[in-house]
Amino acid sequence: MYFYPIAIIIIMYLRSVEWLSDKIRIIDQNLLPNKLVYKDLTSLEEVADAIKSMKVRGAPLIGVVAALGLALVAKRSRSKGKELLKILYDAYKLLASTRPTAVNLFNAMDKVLEETKKNPSPDMVELAAKRILDSEVYNNKKISEYGIKIFDGNDSVLTHCNTGSLAAVEIGTALGVVIEGVKKGLVDKVYITETRPKLQGARLTAFELLYADIKPILIVDSAAPFLIKKGLIDVVIVGADRILRDGTVYNKIGTYSLALSAYMNGVDFYVAAPTTTFDLESSRDEIEIEVRDGNEIIRFGGCEVAPSDVDTFNIAFDETPPEYVTGIITEKGILSPPYEESILSVVEV
Amino acid sequence: MYFYPIAIIIIMYLRSVEWLSDKIRIIDQNLLPNKLVYKDLTSLEEVADAIKSMKVRGAPLIGVVAALGLALVAKRSRSKGKELLKILYDAYKLLASTRPTAVNLFNAMDKVLEETKKNPSPDMVELAAKRILDSEVYNNKKISEYGIKIFDGNDSVLTHCNTGSLAAVEIGTALGVVIEGVKKGLVDKVYITETRPKLQGARLTAFELLYADIKPILIVDSAAPFLIKKGLIDVVIVGADRILRDGTVYNKIGTYSLALSAYMNGVDFYVAAPTTTFDLESSRDEIEIEVRDGNEIIRFGGCEVAPSDVDTFNIAFDETPPEYVTGIITEKGILSPPYEESILSVVEV
Repeated sequence: MYFYPIAIIIIMYLRSVEWLSDKIRIIDQNLLPNKLVYKDLTSLEEVADAIKSMKVRGAPLIGVVAALGLALVAKRSRSKGKELLKILYDAYKLLASTRPTAVNLFNAMDKVLEETKKNPSPDMVELAAKRILDSEVYNNKKISEYGIKIFDGNDSVLTHCNTGSLAAVEIGTALGVVIEGVKKGLVDKVYITETRPKLQGARLTAFELLYADIKPILIVDSAAPFLIKKGLIDVVIVGADRILRDGTVYNKIGTYSLALSAYMNGVDFYVAAPTTTFDLESSRDEIEIEVRDGNEIIRFGGCEVAPSDVDTFNIAFDETPPEYVTGIITEKGILSPPYEESILSVVEV
Repeated sequence: MYFYPIAIIIIMYLRSVEWLSDKIRIIDQNLLPNKLVYKDLTSLEEVADAIKSMKVRGAPLIGVVAALGLALVAKRSRSKGKELLKILYDAYKLLASTRPTAVNLFNAMDKVLEETKKNPSPDMVELAAKRILDSEVYNNKKISEYGIKIFDGNDSVLTHCNTGSLAAVEIGTALGVVIEGVKKGLVDKVYITETRPKLQGARLTAFELLYADIKPILIVDSAAPFLIKKGLIDVVIVGADRILRDGTVYNKIGTYSLALSAYMNGVDFYVAAPTTTFDLESSRDEIEIEVRDGNEIIRFGGCEVAPSDVDTFNIAFDETPPEYVTGIITEKGILSPPYEESILSVVEV
């Protein structure tokens, strides 16, 4: 594969979301990579639908869009005080019902409510939501700065799903680290999994890497654990939708098998995620793992890939035990085991 | 999920290939499940193309079709003696170049040549090839008879790729065992992986199970190792394209990650294959693992699923170490570790 000389690499990050005072401009990610279509969300229902149908997806991004969704509702309502608070709580409930597993969705909305509940006004809600958007960009920049320390040089890196600008606001989490690694000349080869059923890897990660002038090597998901075994991968790096206090990682289905193979074959396995991904409250048996519509497996685009009368089990996330995780890259540094200790040291409780 | 009462299950096995004296009738498996199209192969080139392009696929079936290919060439040539032998060797070379990993292709053709080289005539070649076809059906019947001993009752079974009638002649290997298990009331749930990139699970295994009135649960490949971890699977059973003397198993990409997860989580992992799948000669570093065209990943059916300018690594098979294999189900019984011993006890050297 061919990379442009480092000197002339100009990384052009996409921007996945913009706040335009009374509407939210997103990219409809279901249409990528064939069409780059921007869409303006102008009502609470449109925001909820965009998250549920995965027009926007990625744990950090759905947190930001939900926070902006509260701002949108507040601005449009022109209410304040208790009346506004009731409207915000109703909006919270609707948005919270869209996707259960990524904790950022809840954390971001909680923060907006917390910062505004004493003196609720549309401007306050807007400010709080915008702070979340801005801190996401800042966090991702810090993650990529810390993250490149995991590379030794000439590394072959494997990543799963999409964790770039399109999963965040700009830069991204795991993919931001990978792109920064290539830019700094530390990463030679970037293997990406296609990530069935929604193909976030084949569609979105491939698109983002090509956009940044990096040519990825696309593989089917089931090949990844074997490539790790064969010694073709130096580092695995993924994002996360939720990380428990003990370091248990919830992430896109397929992550467990990558972590397991990395662990059994002595390959480093890193998780890159902002500290807003931590869930200090829940235990494993309390986490709801989303099961999505089976049509995502049976059909793709206009193509039917299986007989329509089969049953399906379209589980969207899996659970990786902390023993398999070499380190967690956050905006506050790289955390090492034991995670209970290192996580608590960077998160305000 | 719902199964018909056992008493009224009438298993109707498909038949994947027929020998019609001077042509080979196959099902074009690339068109399934949308269209069930039979195609007659009438020349050596058509036979080679059918194998290479995966109109016929599955280790046992490509062995049978290659053997019948030699019969076709012999019948059409109307030669005998040394002249016929030369024609057969040339045909062997072309057919051997189609797909490198499944050993049955080579084993079946070797057997035809061995049985006919003393006194080569078209009738002799036809008889030898037909014996291979018939023994395949017999072997699969025996495999399914022995195989059901692995079930305890109420089992949830996971299988990968397609190993049914469409991968063999009738009944199949691993899928034959599964269907027999359902028929005998020992298997409750059948999970099947879609098996990217060619979707043999979603297209062919789903089709065969529905044809046998069994409703499978279709999952994406990367979900399978996690379902094993979560305790949803009692037994994993797969086929094989080649099994070495020490029990190393070459099979469809993704098999390694299933075996690894089964091993780490204490779940039984069985391989079902006729003894013609054994390769007693080769060592691991001599095995060529087929890498297929990347367009199989980038496109599916009429749908483009990734930007066309990405690189790909479309490795079609992987290697599972014998330590992860609970047993190998053959037409001569279920073999247990140590495999060097048990394999040699059933194979004539």
